Amino acid sequence: MAKAEIITIGNELISGKTVDINSSYCAQRLTAVGIDVLRITSVGDDFETVSDVLKKAIKETNFVIITGGLGSTKDDITNEIVSKALNIPLVLNKEALQLIEEKTQKAGIKMNPSLEKMAWIPEKAKILDTEGNACGYKLEHKDVILYFLPGVPEQMRYLLDRFVIPDIVSKTEDLPSVEQRIIKLYGINESLIAEKLKGIKAENVLLGFYPKFPEYHILLTAKGKDKEKIKEEIKEVEEKIKERLSSYIFTTKDERLEDVVGRLLRKKGLTISVAESCTGGLIGHRITNVPGSSDYFMGGAVVYSNEAKMRLLGVKKETLEKYGAVSSQTAKEMAEGIRRCIPADIGLAVTGIAGPSGGTKEKPVGTVFIGLSTEKETITKRYLFFGEREQIKLNTSTMALDWIRRYIKGDPFIPGI
Amino acid sequence: MAKAEIITIGNELISGKTVDINSSYCAQRLTAVGIDVLRITSVGDDFETVSDVLKKAIKETNFVIITGGLGSTKDDITNEIVSKALNIPLVLNKEALQLIEEKTQKAGIKMNPSLEKMAWIPEKAKILDTEGNACGYKLEHKDVILYFLPGVPEQMRYLLDRFVIPDIVSKTEDLPSVEQRIIKLYGINESLIAEKLKGIKAENVLLGFYPKFPEYHILLTAKGKDKEKIKEEIKEVEEKIKERLSSYIFTTKDERLEDVVGRLLRKKGLTISVAESCTGGLIGHRITNVPGSSDYFMGGAVVYSNEAKMRLLGVKKETLEKYGAVSSQTAKEMAEGIRRCIPADIGLAVTGIAGPSGGTKEKPVGTVFIGLSTEKETITKRYLFFGEREQIKLNTSTMALDWIRRYIKGDPFIPGI
Repeated sequence: MAKAEIITIGNELISGKTVDINSSYCAQRLTAVGIDVLRITSVGDDFETVSDVLKKAIKETNFVIITGGLGSTKDDITNEIVSKALNIPLVLNKEALQLIEEKTQKAGIKMNPSLEKMAWIPEKAKILDTEGNACGYKLEHKDVILYFLPGVPEQMRYLLDRFVIPDIVSKTEDLPSVEQRIIKLYGINESLIAEKLKGIKAENVLLGFYPKFPEYHILLTAKGKDKEKIKEEIKEVEEKIKERLSSYIFTTKDERLEDVVGRLLRKKGLTISVAESCTGGLIGHRITNVPGSSDYFMGGAVVYSNEAKMRLLGVKKETLEKYGAVSSQTAKEMAEGIRRCIPADIGLAVTGIAGPSGGTKEKPVGTVFIGLSTEKETITKRYLFFGEREQIKLNTSTMALDWIRRYIKGDPFIPGI
Repeated sequence: MAKAEIITIGNELISGKTVDINSSYCAQRLTAVGIDVLRITSVGDDFETVSDVLKKAIKETNFVIITGGLGSTKDDITNEIVSKALNIPLVLNKEALQLIEEKTQKAGIKMNPSLEKMAWIPEKAKILDTEGNACGYKLEHKDVILYFLPGVPEQMRYLLDRFVIPDIVSKTEDLPSVEQRIIKLYGINESLIAEKLKGIKAENVLLGFYPKFPEYHILLTAKGKDKEKIKEEIKEVEEKIKERLSSYIFTTKDERLEDVVGRLLRKKGLTISVAESCTGGLIGHRITNVPGSSDYFMGGAVVYSNEAKMRLLGVKKETLEKYGAVSSQTAKEMAEGIRRCIPADIGLAVTGIAGPSGGTKEKPVGTVFIGLSTEKETITKRYLFFGEREQIKLNTSTMALDWIRRYIKGDPFIPGI
């Protein structure tokens, strides 16, 4: 099986200033075409460390993708390191030089020594993009092919997708087919998932379990020569998991809960408006992250103060005084009130204590009431969420969105407390 | 100089399913206390690869931080790998078992074998958090200390900050002093920053330039034995940068724009309410991410539909018909309307086209109007933002928050178009 290593170079990576998003992109693309990624390594702009990592990768893998350190500034020293480490002289690559000259001319910049430096690359290296949209090259060394790409994510992706991946695929015989499925869940914890899935045999299907707060994702991967066979195998496992985890699954696609909710609302021709207290606007924000959401999202009221609850939604003063702003009764009046205020088929309301202060013994931080009102009925439930303020907000918004999904599908809500 | 390696374990990392955000967090914390990070390595749940990486790290560094693979599911095999690789038997750690039992009991989950598995850790390993908020342990092996942390970011961070970093600092002699300053800017582009900073000498201060869409961050780092001296040096450079970039700088602390805005509102005793169209609730969400924001945030209206704009905010039908929902006139009426609807000192409004559809030649996708209304006056401006839907929403919310900051400080707004 063909193996690859991804090496990202830059002091900003090992000092933690920058999150390395290039590696996961490369890894995803390689995995999708059937290449195993052995390791991802990040190192600083330092000769010894890079040299060591590079030599190890050449020994153990077939393809090495290196990003970063190809630019024009002083700290871009990947070319020198490679030259020394692999004992290949740097030469002025005329094709590279011409491309740089053309590019700088277009941008109205004068050619200078630091720009020329970028064209000094290892002997026998081949420029990847001869149209010069991004600088990067390929170097065959022993039985290994090394791809040197820029660290700027957009340029890296451009070269990877257009040149590197097709090149790797053309150079690899007997690449296996790869099938992947994602199963996204909400409202069920890891150990219960493990219990429910006990006894499911998935011999040729690799299962990955990933908490993605507040969701939980299961990734199915199957690899093999026979595309049809692995498709069937993965489908069989997927069906079994679906059967056992049923309504906890909100999607088996690469999409968000708000995309699912949007599709359901659109399909049923329903509209929604939301009344938010502790989430402060997050539910509306998530709903409107979906393009075209204006078709079903009528609007929302962020009623942080009691006065706003009364003025905008007609929540009764007596209700607030008797039961408090965080109560089933207030959630009910908010859900009904938002439908009067911004008419829609479904009125959704949340009120709770996001913390860190404001909790009491009876209603600790994380106490949240959700209400859903339609022409027919109004339902409310009480939940208790854990974590920091932003986690409680996020969990509350997810539960609220999940309510819409379950309501439309006729599935029972996650039980309250 | 004490060195560290960070190893993250999980098939989700090398398959590109998950972006590794733990490494950069660890690296940042280590760098901040003067520990050099030699390498960051990600590997799959595979015995040979993990074993190899682990042994190499033990040979070359003083501290190794390992995250991932400590959970209760089948693919969590870090403990077994460590046991085999370092030839240390796994034992049922009674302290760990008790903590897990207590935790599951609290959560109302029954104890089961997969949960018990988590308490089987290497002999002589020491539990990090004896209060059991997160599972993780420390293992001394030869001259090296290994810290095993969960892959769930919140838990990893909790253990790292409270136990790992203090432990490393206490175990390291002659740690250099490290001084860092962050300067966060909004509304100015990279090349203009470069122009403005030309000629600033920063010999012993390392400058890092990082676009953090839609913001821009400059990181100053100085390292040395003499704490007072490096403090002085970094201060000198910081002051020069502040002088040249003045009002574009919204903070020189590790805080968000919404924290700055909240502090300013609180200091001046001012309240705010917001009317959001294209941002869908994001501005309210960001304002309410700040603990205690209920003191100054009165609430908001998410007026996605024209009807909501009219009903809630009293935007005139004629205005919407004559100028459109995305116009200076509508922004003005929204900003004034929200102050009537949810009384506050400042009324803030945004209306725009987040795309991907809805753009016209006169008002392309990314066209946004911002309005700010007080008792004294109402100001509006037109902006054009680029990017995808979510980038336009984010940029709009940042510009709106920056308006509050500039308004309170008496600085001019970023010019519109």
